[in-house]
Amino acid sequence: MTVLSERRPTGGARQVASEPTVDVAHLEHVLLGRWRDVRREARAFLADPRLHRVEGMSSAEHRATVLEQLRILAVEGDVLRAFPTELGGADDHGAALARFEEVLVADPSLQIKAGVQWGLFASAILHLGTEDHHRRLLPAAMSLEVPGAFAMTEAGHGSDVASLATTATYDPATEEFVIHTPYRQAWKDYLGNAALHGTAAVVFAQLVSGGVGYGVHAFYVPIRNPETGEFLPGVGGEDDGLKGGLNGIDNGRLWFDHVRVPRRDLLNRYGDVAPDGTYSSPIASPGRRFFTMLGTLVQGRVSLDGAVVNAAKLGLITAVTYGNQRRQFTAASPHDEVVLLDYAEHQRRLLPRLAQTYAHVFAHERMLEAFDGVFSGAHDSDEDRQDLETIAAALKPTSTWHALDTLQAAREACGGAGFLTENRLVSLRADLDVYATFEGDNTVLLQLVAKRLLADWSKDFAGIDATGLAKYVAGRAADAAMHRTPLARVVQVLSDGGDVRRSVGHLRDTETQRELLTDRVETMIAEIGTALRPAMKAPKDEAARRFNAQQHVLVEAARAHADLLLWEAFTAGLAQVTDPGTRRVLTWLRDLFGLSVVERNLAWYLIHGRLSAARARTVTSYIDRLLTRLRPHAQDLVDAFGYGPEHVRAVIASGVEEQRQEEARAYQRRARADGTAPRSEKAERPAHGRSRG
Amino acid sequence: MTVLSERRPTGGARQVASEPTVDVAHLEHVLLGRWRDVRREARAFLADPRLHRVEGMSSAEHRATVLEQLRILAVEGDVLRAFPTELGGADDHGAALARFEEVLVADPSLQIKAGVQWGLFASAILHLGTEDHHRRLLPAAMSLEVPGAFAMTEAGHGSDVASLATTATYDPATEEFVIHTPYRQAWKDYLGNAALHGTAAVVFAQLVSGGVGYGVHAFYVPIRNPETGEFLPGVGGEDDGLKGGLNGIDNGRLWFDHVRVPRRDLLNRYGDVAPDGTYSSPIASPGRRFFTMLGTLVQGRVSLDGAVVNAAKLGLITAVTYGNQRRQFTAASPHDEVVLLDYAEHQRRLLPRLAQTYAHVFAHERMLEAFDGVFSGAHDSDEDRQDLETIAAALKPTSTWHALDTLQAAREACGGAGFLTENRLVSLRADLDVYATFEGDNTVLLQLVAKRLLADWSKDFAGIDATGLAKYVAGRAADAAMHRTPLARVVQVLSDGGDVRRSVGHLRDTETQRELLTDRVETMIAEIGTALRPAMKAPKDEAARRFNAQQHVLVEAARAHADLLLWEAFTAGLAQVTDPGTRRVLTWLRDLFGLSVVERNLAWYLIHGRLSAARARTVTSYIDRLLTRLRPHAQDLVDAFGYGPEHVRAVIASGVEEQRQEEARAYQRRARADGTAPRSEKAERPAHGRSRG
Repeated sequence: MTVLSERRPTGGARQVASEPTVDVAHLEHVLLGRWRDVRREARAFLADPRLHRVEGMSSAEHRATVLEQLRILAVEGDVLRAFPTELGGADDHGAALARFEEVLVADPSLQIKAGVQWGLFASAILHLGTEDHHRRLLPAAMSLEVPGAFAMTEAGHGSDVASLATTATYDPATEEFVIHTPYRQAWKDYLGNAALHGTAAVVFAQLVSGGVGYGVHAFYVPIRNPETGEFLPGVGGEDDGLKGGLNGIDNGRLWFDHVRVPRRDLLNRYGDVAPDGTYSSPIASPGRRFFTMLGTLVQGRVSLDGAVVNAAKLGLITAVTYGNQRRQFTAASPHDEVVLLDYAEHQRRLLPRLAQTYAHVFAHERMLEAFDGVFSGAHDSDEDRQDLETIAAALKPTSTWHALDTLQAAREACGGAGFLTENRLVSLRADLDVYATFEGDNTVLLQLVAKRLLADWSKDFAGIDATGLAKYVAGRAADAAMHRTPLARVVQVLSDGGDVRRSVGHLRDTETQRELLTDRVETMIAEIGTALRPAMKAPKDEAARRFNAQQHVLVEAARAHADLLLWEAFTAGLAQVTDPGTRRVLTWLRDLFGLSVVERNLAWYLIHGRLSAARARTVTSYIDRLLTRLRPHAQDLVDAFGYGPEHVRAVIASGVEEQRQEEARAYQRRARADGTAPRSEKAERPAHGRSRG
Repeated sequence: MTVLSERRPTGGARQVASEPTVDVAHLEHVLLGRWRDVRREARAFLADPRLHRVEGMSSAEHRATVLEQLRILAVEGDVLRAFPTELGGADDHGAALARFEEVLVADPSLQIKAGVQWGLFASAILHLGTEDHHRRLLPAAMSLEVPGAFAMTEAGHGSDVASLATTATYDPATEEFVIHTPYRQAWKDYLGNAALHGTAAVVFAQLVSGGVGYGVHAFYVPIRNPETGEFLPGVGGEDDGLKGGLNGIDNGRLWFDHVRVPRRDLLNRYGDVAPDGTYSSPIASPGRRFFTMLGTLVQGRVSLDGAVVNAAKLGLITAVTYGNQRRQFTAASPHDEVVLLDYAEHQRRLLPRLAQTYAHVFAHERMLEAFDGVFSGAHDSDEDRQDLETIAAALKPTSTWHALDTLQAAREACGGAGFLTENRLVSLRADLDVYATFEGDNTVLLQLVAKRLLADWSKDFAGIDATGLAKYVAGRAADAAMHRTPLARVVQVLSDGGDVRRSVGHLRDTETQRELLTDRVETMIAEIGTALRPAMKAPKDEAARRFNAQQHVLVEAARAHADLLLWEAFTAGLAQVTDPGTRRVLTWLRDLFGLSVVERNLAWYLIHGRLSAARARTVTSYIDRLLTRLRPHAQDLVDAFGYGPEHVRAVIASGVEEQRQEEARAYQRRARADGTAPRSEKAERPAHGRSRG
């Protein structure tokens, strides 16, 4: 997307000799991370027009096209890396996701349809099934011979998976499970591949044997006749119809009327039923068993995080490239209009989002490493898995919301042109909308994160030593003091003395930023924990009320935790940047991210006495300074994402705007030169107006 | 949308005897405002399925359908109220917009296409033309015999209308204007009716006579042969193609190659050219002339504001109704799951947006009254017009962003169901996206508002009396003191003494809220004005740099001004509520709006020493209290919008969710009663698991 003439600073940005430059190739190398070769291969492959979204299709055409593209992927797309070597895979989990995440640039519908087939349907067979299932069922799922649905969500229960109402009742007489949908709310819903293409499904149902419920388990259930496409006896469903986006996927509903499947089609890695109906599981605790099963599917959240960050990159490439060419209104010069990105407000709209996108790139890379560690078995302790799940639960909501926000900001920054489908921003945003809901509703996930943080906090608190306790109490006291004791504030205000320069130096300091972001998470969790402690022994309804009263702060604390994860990842990422100029610019970008987070929560820092009013003011002024410094590098920073025109596919980012403006300026210059340009009315004396004809 | 069983408070909300109730009918009466009869008629008319958006059509089908619907509107839709009585109109401007704004509930494409025809094309002939044009051209435009385009925007100039490059050069030899497009950037773009249906256009071009440019004027230009639909000689264009929404409108591009139109087809109310080429205008100043011409088109912004607020109402009706029925996760009860709207975070997502929507309803009504005053001639001074334009420039950006934000929050609050087109939230949001850009880019409009505020401020400052000056300086001093002088802060913190109850009482006070919101606007403008004063006499580039450095704060100040307008309108609106219970609830809602604005800008209030840390804390805790108080009234508050199922047309808001959940709960009660419900695994002793078969 590089537009050379715009790569160097334009009008508004004054450069000095010492101005650092960005080594775009080096930065691209760093951003592509450990799986850079896989990502480069994937991008080369996805440049193939056969795989690209064609706009303006009917939903039926789009669905058919995406199925065709999925077949191409199955054959040429190297989609099996995560599967066992003996079945033609590579047992290479991190690389598989890195590659899968790139598919979004072709069409998010294709990415999600692929995710349903290989990431959910086939993966469930792999991770929840055992050797017999791998042998019997995996090959056809991997080859797409059997397109499959992942039948977990029900109309009545999306987030609350443990409460699914579909039942799988074991019948020892025939050694079969009877899959049944008791009522309308128990219909499976929103399932990709369910409306049209799926011939089988992994169905999650309450396993019942001998009158005892053993919780949610997964079953392999054929649903359609592959020849006729008709539902099999006892199976029914509906098409979910049009959606706000992702209409290349045939989402639908399924119900089962006493459908019988053989005992062996229970995916029995974590729970099995003997011919006589005896239930057994390697995990005694029903709760741990449930979360272990769901945990094997964490890759869905991990890969969504990577995919939406790629979408944010595309949006920023388009908006920054256009913003570097589009001109509107004159300022200093009477003739040459100002380039949009030279406007401070335009920088405010795009550059902090660019900074957060960088943070997400580095954070995702870290999460992908953790994911690879767990699934390769290299680092596969319970704690590793729990950490991975918590990180995924924190990053997926943050990145999906960030991508929606960034695509919208890019859309608006491109004005009317941004609304044209040919520039892709609106379609990408429409497709990504539901990413905030599926694979775990963002708000629900953030509460899981907060609960994990609380658990850690109260464990610490239980096993805390005298010093720790003292520190904690002191912390609370100091905190309170900030609100209660004028003196404490006086001292702090005096210490700042409103010396802006020193104050900025302070904010630029990595340790200061770390301290501010860390302190916020710890303090919020400590405050919530303290407020919730009475709830532990309170009656159920009182406990529920107290917990509900904290719900909003819980979500905020989880966001604060995610902000910290992002900042730490960005900071760690800086170490990989060896080129000094590039590192300097990237450090500004990291500062912009860190201080934007602080600015967003400035009231909290002031209320808690962490920043004085004088210092708080400098946060915004330093952000303004960073925007001016970063502005000349904006194009380099988006070019370093390494996507070409064949991936961005936005007309306004193609350079056409600049050519047309040059044509216009040339015309005007000629007109001024040869005197054919109209004279200004003001310049004319009243007399002149008359009888020129 | 009323669902009786949910009208009264549910689980989470504990009521006391003194709990007020909302008189929904009375509140609806108040909200419908001065033009309630027109609005009721419009809603009754728009219940007609012939006018409703049909989802899943191709863009071509959708365009054809909307044209048909437009013809229905032309005949049965009472669309001519704003036009002169002698031509079959009613000279009834406020009523015309009130009615037009409702059309959105049928299909935003229909509303905007109607806006192009009657609000822009025909209105331009009415307001920029004179008696001869009204006689010759208006009837066919009004009757839709001539579908027309409003050709103002060019590819190269959207917001900067004064810089349009299309020329209209007068040729006294033939007494014609030559309309010409000099280069690609001068193509007219994004014009509704231009791609297909328009047979004429009002074209804005630089009027040139005798080599002198007299600025932008409007010309009536036939563009297509009505029979063949072919472009006329010298006219060409392109289809804008697919868009992010509003695909029922045929937006397109137009260019003109020396197209000649008779002298009389200059819409000459504000500028005319004599046969000999002499230019004359009732307005000597080119600048004032330009803004006067554009000012006659302010109704576009006014009506968008009303229309998007109606869209926000639809979104909230759906989300609140569903949130009052949908249940997820159990809390206090082991069996009955919690209704979504009983969750504090769900209340946080919806109720403050409901409060802001109410503020917009009242603010729009006020603006509509001002609009009617100006266009009826009752209050038509220059100042009246300038005030109206400033209010419109402040409210249109705020309401369009609010509607997008509210529809998105509603979409997410409805989870996966919100993503299904059958529930309409996604289509409404997609259609409204561009409302933030057209009729004036939101960010550009806000800068106009800020400049107006600055002009007022510096006028005040110029003509300020000794006391006023003293007050101003004192204000500045006190302000500075808050950051510099520990003592000042000490005093304030002591005075609050962290007495939360008194502090809350303080925040609940109308005058306190007014003072907080007003003070912020005045202080921001004063700070900007002071920072910009040196720019007045600085060289052009230095002035541009200084202004650019303030751009972000300028936009923020304009938002703050809009917040104040909204709050004042809401507060004034309370006086119209005569039912005590309703007024009490609405006062809570007004407080929620006011304090949400304060909470959003809490850091500013802390930094400027307007709120102590202790008091700032109570802002959030009081908001939480208001949410709990308002929650039982949420359904009443959306029911009072007065839209029926025929307007909302969202499956999930139809009550089906509640029926299905009752079916599920009944099934589970039966199962528990007759003992067919599976026993819990935990309850079983290990032995039990075995040999039950």
